[in-house]
Amino acid sequence: MTEGRYVIGLDLGGTNSVFGIVDATGNIVAETSIKTQGHGSNPQQYVDDCMVELRKIIDSVGGIKNIRAMGIGAPNANYYTGCINMAPNLPWKEESIPLAKMFSEALGVPVTMTNDANAAAIGEMTYGAAKGMKNFIMITLGTGVGSGIVVNGQLVYGSDGLAGELGHVIVEKNGRMCGCGRKGCLETYCSSTGVARTAREIITSTDTPTLLRDIPLDKIESKDVSIAAEKGDKVAKQIFETTGRILGEACADFATFCSPEAFIFFGGLTNAGDLIMNPIKHAYEESVLPIYRGKAKMLVSQLDGAKAAVLGASALGWEINNKI
Amino acid sequence: MTEGRYVIGLDLGGTNSVFGIVDATGNIVAETSIKTQGHGSNPQQYVDDCMVELRKIIDSVGGIKNIRAMGIGAPNANYYTGCINMAPNLPWKEESIPLAKMFSEALGVPVTMTNDANAAAIGEMTYGAAKGMKNFIMITLGTGVGSGIVVNGQLVYGSDGLAGELGHVIVEKNGRMCGCGRKGCLETYCSSTGVARTAREIITSTDTPTLLRDIPLDKIESKDVSIAAEKGDKVAKQIFETTGRILGEACADFATFCSPEAFIFFGGLTNAGDLIMNPIKHAYEESVLPIYRGKAKMLVSQLDGAKAAVLGASALGWEINNKI
Repeated sequence: MTEGRYVIGLDLGGTNSVFGIVDATGNIVAETSIKTQGHGSNPQQYVDDCMVELRKIIDSVGGIKNIRAMGIGAPNANYYTGCINMAPNLPWKEESIPLAKMFSEALGVPVTMTNDANAAAIGEMTYGAAKGMKNFIMITLGTGVGSGIVVNGQLVYGSDGLAGELGHVIVEKNGRMCGCGRKGCLETYCSSTGVARTAREIITSTDTPTLLRDIPLDKIESKDVSIAAEKGDKVAKQIFETTGRILGEACADFATFCSPEAFIFFGGLTNAGDLIMNPIKHAYEESVLPIYRGKAKMLVSQLDGAKAAVLGASALGWEINNKI
Repeated sequence: MTEGRYVIGLDLGGTNSVFGIVDATGNIVAETSIKTQGHGSNPQQYVDDCMVELRKIIDSVGGIKNIRAMGIGAPNANYYTGCINMAPNLPWKEESIPLAKMFSEALGVPVTMTNDANAAAIGEMTYGAAKGMKNFIMITLGTGVGSGIVVNGQLVYGSDGLAGELGHVIVEKNGRMCGCGRKGCLETYCSSTGVARTAREIITSTDTPTLLRDIPLDKIESKDVSIAAEKGDKVAKQIFETTGRILGEACADFATFCSPEAFIFFGGLTNAGDLIMNPIKHAYEESVLPIYRGKAKMLVSQLDGAKAAVLGASALGWEINNKI
């Protein structure tokens, strides 16, 4: 019996389920994926279909004896219960799906699960920019805005396993309608969809010339804004300026909570580089309570974007192992 | 040698320094106090003068052998360094005063120090409404608004020892000027001075009849608003309604951070009872992200107001002892 040299990470997204087998230094030694949809409405069928693919890569690293544990990063996952609760973009309609238990039974190793942003935070702490940090906030800028908060070296799960939803802090009273049913949430402005929404608002409410007018209004994406900004388009640059300012001011409020050593930003919007990071830094330092000024680092994730979610999920596996 | 049955708590305020000797169940078995001002500009003189009074009550409980440790709750105190940094209401002008070390040298027992709101949170966890809770937020409603945040059973000190300043979350962009130099902080609305400020604004900007007009404008205090509200005064009731709503909405944002089991409110404003607590609860449930709805308790401190600060400081003393 070995203790297992590897952990499995599963990045469970609305479209794809990506598996990686990862060593202790963060190398993905084997990977595979299946579509998340198309396995019927029964989550057991999904797990069974995953296992067919998963066994192949497990065999390629010498079999299950080399696997210590598995970590899953998934939307609406609860760390305490190991269940996914009513995730709007996943195919299962049950109120609560005990996916950690189901995979653990199928594999015979411990499995733990948390939401994607928390997994990213643990990944960053295990393999990335937050190595050695005890207090930091991970902000994921994707379709939505997610967050994973680390205090005293531990992830903040709260009383119910659902803490760390900073994307739903209200930054504008009676502002933009959010998918959560409330108005003015951070993610309605600072996600990739929020950036596209800002672009559409400017195009329809002003006459200012911009390259973005060459794109059909309903097709504009955040990466179009990024491309236009890199070409020097003033409107596009202003959109990143505004987005960064809102995010920097929000982070200034977050600092009052846990005075983090760093904010680490992850996801598509960070590809805009200084265009977004400079306004974040500027607005943060300008807005933050004087006792915190000049202290927090504003960093971009050091994990390879395509692999980060799998790495983050796999890092959860090492956490289990530390606990046992 | 005994291990010491008691801890000393020092509530260091701008006016008075109150000492209590406290047993493990939260009984204050001896107490004394001196004025904080009037010992010259040298903090060593203050410590020496404190020691004269402190020795008397230590002798009354059988001498220093019965004392395990001392905890200090003080404005602008840093838990990590044991120093007070530039507290505007204290008599010492040094940038950093190592008060924990100075008392420890004078007494010969370990001494630790944190800010008053953190001390209140530890007091509540040790002796009060938060007994057994691992995740809660303490909100102190005094001259300012302070906070102490407990996550995974530990106080959140952050990367620099200065975390937990929720009174300086901005609740109104370009709102009221705050003592911190910024605008729209929670404490400019929801402290006792914030409530008095709201009263003065309404009196000077409207003609609505109210009992508060019988008081000279610059003499109005939050307790006058409380007294008027209890007499059924509509304006006074509306002031608590507005104050509670702002506080409830802010707490809804705080929940996204750590999903606490409870919010515990402490300080003069809580004397208004349901007049303030009902609007807080109502606004919280109405504003909070649906996944948190109906979960957090909204509680009033269970510590006796006059003794709470000393008890909170003393509870820090037990914490040291647990660490050693």
